[in-house]
Amino acid sequence: MNKAVVLLSGGLDSSTCLAIAQSKGFEVAALTVDYGQRHHAEIESADRVVAALGVTEHKTVKVDLSSIGGSALTDAIDVPKDRDEAEMADEIPITYVPARNTIMLSVALGYAEVIEADSIYIGVNAVDYSGYPDCRPEFVEAFQTLANLATKRAVEGQMIRIESPLLMLKKTEIIEWGLRLGLDYGLTHSCYDPTADGRACGRCDACLIRSAAFEELGQVDPVLEHLSR
Amino acid sequence: MNKAVVLLSGGLDSSTCLAIAQSKGFEVAALTVDYGQRHHAEIESADRVVAALGVTEHKTVKVDLSSIGGSALTDAIDVPKDRDEAEMADEIPITYVPARNTIMLSVALGYAEVIEADSIYIGVNAVDYSGYPDCRPEFVEAFQTLANLATKRAVEGQMIRIESPLLMLKKTEIIEWGLRLGLDYGLTHSCYDPTADGRACGRCDACLIRSAAFEELGQVDPVLEHLSR
Repeated sequence: MNKAVVLLSGGLDSSTCLAIAQSKGFEVAALTVDYGQRHHAEIESADRVVAALGVTEHKTVKVDLSSIGGSALTDAIDVPKDRDEAEMADEIPITYVPARNTIMLSVALGYAEVIEADSIYIGVNAVDYSGYPDCRPEFVEAFQTLANLATKRAVEGQMIRIESPLLMLKKTEIIEWGLRLGLDYGLTHSCYDPTADGRACGRCDACLIRSAAFEELGQVDPVLEHLSR
Repeated sequence: MNKAVVLLSGGLDSSTCLAIAQSKGFEVAALTVDYGQRHHAEIESADRVVAALGVTEHKTVKVDLSSIGGSALTDAIDVPKDRDEAEMADEIPITYVPARNTIMLSVALGYAEVIEADSIYIGVNAVDYSGYPDCRPEFVEAFQTLANLATKRAVEGQMIRIESPLLMLKKTEIIEWGLRLGLDYGLTHSCYDPTADGRACGRCDACLIRSAAFEELGQVDPVLEHLSR
């Protein structure tokens, strides 16, 4: 059985990615990078998703990006709220974490090499991507080129493929794919600014993007049900 | 004054790199990645080099690669000793840390973006490189391509240059350059398997490569003087 490392934040996209990798027949090793997020709701969510999907191998690797700062997700900077689509599209937001996907893919590359996985799944998405530069197809392609040169396995002729199945999908298409695979999105967590008890705020960009997609599908985002009660 | 992030392990190559970046007129921010090395002599050496060269900005970022394993430098695997040149050249050694340079450059990229540095210096060397795949020119070029796509600064037209001035130099040439710049190599630490009090073993690949180079220059490697007394 071929192995795949799946980068799992516990959010909607990466959880869908994990379900997809399983559906392709891979034995999945989930990798969560704890990069010093201000809140831990995401990481707890990753644990829930892994348990629900029966994944037995799950590593959490700490990378202390909070010592570098530069983002509302690792620093004491306010997360923007209630922005409309035009505002979100306008510029790269303060929730951007410098070089985050580069760092996460690099750690995944090392892990894939150690466990002899031949694929790495990452749930990047260029459509509803909030303007992050490291969610674009050309970024993923450049990382693939790098991966082919960077490792001992590659030198020995064993390439590690970077798989980004969500890259060109709309958020609604991602959710539909996950639902078809039986994924319970109530387990996932995407919010940038959760309440003290770990619930989604419903107002940050991440909450707004996913709830709009569920609405388009005629559903209520299960992680926001507490707000409509 | 332009800023440069210098990846500093505290070894011979990275310390020389720091002196070179200073000599080019950069304001240097040193970055040490603590990736769960079995010993801390390297990191203490980085502190000494930074102090000696008057660098005021020095971050140490923890990336827990020991949880991934796969290397004699992070795992409980013996470091090879007393190998001759042919043995060293034969294959990629067990001291290879999967994806290490990719991970360190990624963290440096994030740091460079935050502090608005326009260059990253890394002391990789393709000549006496112990067979590591991530020390080759094509690896550095691929990372440059990735860096040009990965960051907010790049999207805004501010490229971050990856500088690897030691890439094509012999170890003797590296040492000569550092000596011209007044670097005290007694402050550096390259050994893979130091004694309990942090002294170089003189027998691992890293010790053998640097001591042979000093010998070729008619000198004794200052970190090995304790062995010749």
